[in-house]
Amino acid sequence: MMDEQPVVPVSFDAQGEDPEWVHEPDCETCGHCDRDVVIEQAELEAFVAGVLERYGVSRHEGEIVARVLVASDLRGIPSHGVARLQRYLTGIERGFIVPGAQVEIWEPLPAIAVLDARNGIGQVAAEQAMDLALHKAREQGVGVVTVRRSNHYGIAGYYAMKALEHGMIGVSMTNAAPLVVPTFGRDVLLGTNPIAFAAPARNHPGFVLDMATSVVPRGKLEVYDRDDRQMPVGWSLDEEGFDCQNPKQVLRNMAERLGGGILPLGGRGETFSGHKGYGLAFMVDILCGVLSGAGFGRGVNDLKRPVPPGEVAGPDVGHFFLALDIQRFLPLAEFEQRLAAYIADIQGSQLARGEERILVHGQKEFERAACHAEHGIPLARNVADKLVSIAQECGHPPPVSRT
Amino acid sequence: MMDEQPVVPVSFDAQGEDPEWVHEPDCETCGHCDRDVVIEQAELEAFVAGVLERYGVSRHEGEIVARVLVASDLRGIPSHGVARLQRYLTGIERGFIVPGAQVEIWEPLPAIAVLDARNGIGQVAAEQAMDLALHKAREQGVGVVTVRRSNHYGIAGYYAMKALEHGMIGVSMTNAAPLVVPTFGRDVLLGTNPIAFAAPARNHPGFVLDMATSVVPRGKLEVYDRDDRQMPVGWSLDEEGFDCQNPKQVLRNMAERLGGGILPLGGRGETFSGHKGYGLAFMVDILCGVLSGAGFGRGVNDLKRPVPPGEVAGPDVGHFFLALDIQRFLPLAEFEQRLAAYIADIQGSQLARGEERILVHGQKEFERAACHAEHGIPLARNVADKLVSIAQECGHPPPVSRT
Repeated sequence: MMDEQPVVPVSFDAQGEDPEWVHEPDCETCGHCDRDVVIEQAELEAFVAGVLERYGVSRHEGEIVARVLVASDLRGIPSHGVARLQRYLTGIERGFIVPGAQVEIWEPLPAIAVLDARNGIGQVAAEQAMDLALHKAREQGVGVVTVRRSNHYGIAGYYAMKALEHGMIGVSMTNAAPLVVPTFGRDVLLGTNPIAFAAPARNHPGFVLDMATSVVPRGKLEVYDRDDRQMPVGWSLDEEGFDCQNPKQVLRNMAERLGGGILPLGGRGETFSGHKGYGLAFMVDILCGVLSGAGFGRGVNDLKRPVPPGEVAGPDVGHFFLALDIQRFLPLAEFEQRLAAYIADIQGSQLARGEERILVHGQKEFERAACHAEHGIPLARNVADKLVSIAQECGHPPPVSRT
Repeated sequence: MMDEQPVVPVSFDAQGEDPEWVHEPDCETCGHCDRDVVIEQAELEAFVAGVLERYGVSRHEGEIVARVLVASDLRGIPSHGVARLQRYLTGIERGFIVPGAQVEIWEPLPAIAVLDARNGIGQVAAEQAMDLALHKAREQGVGVVTVRRSNHYGIAGYYAMKALEHGMIGVSMTNAAPLVVPTFGRDVLLGTNPIAFAAPARNHPGFVLDMATSVVPRGKLEVYDRDDRQMPVGWSLDEEGFDCQNPKQVLRNMAERLGGGILPLGGRGETFSGHKGYGLAFMVDILCGVLSGAGFGRGVNDLKRPVPPGEVAGPDVGHFFLALDIQRFLPLAEFEQRLAAYIADIQGSQLARGEERILVHGQKEFERAACHAEHGIPLARNVADKLVSIAQECGHPPPVSRT
């Protein structure tokens, strides 16, 4: 599923994609269950944690990474799942990711905290930060936690969704290596900077928005490249800043920073409000990068920048987490009933001609997760092969396929 | 500038547009200074407050409304400026807007508050709510305030920008009367639900994102209708849910709820990620409507819904405000220096061929505001004429034009 050749010059990619990898439909329930390789969720998690242990990652940290990565595959977002394991291993080997780094926590006031992940594993710092935001929200009604000097943290939605089991609203954002051009510009200056937002609803698994602020993720360009397809006008610009439909050209230009890149949500110029996507990406970076003290803009994943002696030049990814304890605003049951009614109203509203159903955010992913939890997680052949070679490399048994 | 014929069946429009009204370029500095009518900011504010006083609004409340409306004209956003005065007067006359309503404030915890505006003037409740969020943020690092049973509050950015003078980050959102269709649907179920976000930057007036979550505001359809122009594909759908380039048809359909409406940011379907704009609009309504206890979805501006005896059936608009006190996270000077550097990097980056400059959000509006503060605020002839007729109607002297 993932192109094993790194697209950016450094082999570690700092939060460079969003979770909207193209889902290739195969089976009627979840869209891709009759893949060649199907692995049980628990087996896949144990494999990831086991491999990480061979790379010096503690069982505790490895289990967190495994949970986040496999949750992505479970939800049908393979771009951020175990297909990324090699990138994490490379990050650990090259010293960009420091297993066991002690997160520094500064809590100036009860409702807020500022974390320094000290180049530790992104998922570990992010889970700690979100849990702290939830704890603060339980006590104070709202909790805000920023994280600096972190690494790729997987799907943004994972952390926002942690709020659901607590009857809270969760927000999770991260900045990312630059891939997106500002409106009227042609240099990549912004990441795909995702926004995730989760809210609970009665008799419904919840509203889960998890979106990059770019018009499409890089993974979509890679799919078009692999299939030798022309991209629609409005996804990306060439090195001069003109519309470009050639995915190979744009991917190469981004990798070598030759100019051009992916357009923000809303596309090119202002006709379809590309300045709004650009503004959202900027907003995410102000919260995740500028406010947290992490890298921002071109500074994310800039491994050549100077660091104090003895320090690691990590990608310096920044995150932002917010939690709201709903019951402090109104009774939780009332909130859930209202949101469920809203969802039902939208789902029951009239379809545009030719369309099949109106989805609510997170619905597709919950459906896939339910299917994969029962039938196992399907993996693309190249991802499965990669896991086998990772296993051989470190002397860990490969994951056992269900089929 | 505004079409004086109401487009929705009720004459009062609950937050139905976003601030991106088309700016018609006239003069080199700000784009529209050589209008027929130019009025000083102070004169225009005094006029609005004076007229409102004749309608039973206290001086204090009238001055708040005047400040917010005129700030919009000052910043070059006439759709939300004094062109809206008649709608407010109509709202007061018809009882949807209750001047002098005592906002009920519930503060369950120091960092949060829940306000009930009791159908009062939107600007009055919103200013009080944002001030409270800022106060809470000063004490707690973060402040969150929701508002229910409110009315149209003008430009969302006005309240977010209040954070700038305090060295804080401000967020302001509101829900709005439904004009937007969900992805794959054809009923208008969501408002243009704006997100405003402001952050201070050294030697720069600040980053101010103020965006509707729809692809374009309704005002843009009105401009195309007035000019008998075909709209681009990707702005709106007809009553069957097909692409529609006829602004008159879409405006009529929305007014009569015949089906069809404006598309979310990202346009139709998923090719350009229309589901993201739909998700953002939904997110805004979860915070502003569902969480606050206000109307949401089709319930905003539904004046036919049952209310308890003695209660007013107001549009039940909901708002959400958040403030973050930057200095609790890192030194303010450091934040400002970082954001200023980021802005400079973007502004100084390479232009796409054929483009003239890369803008940062709020920049155009600050430039216009500086120009209008010096040279007066230009008004379109029909808006100026309307102010004269409002003046005659209530026996207030009309505003004195500078030209």
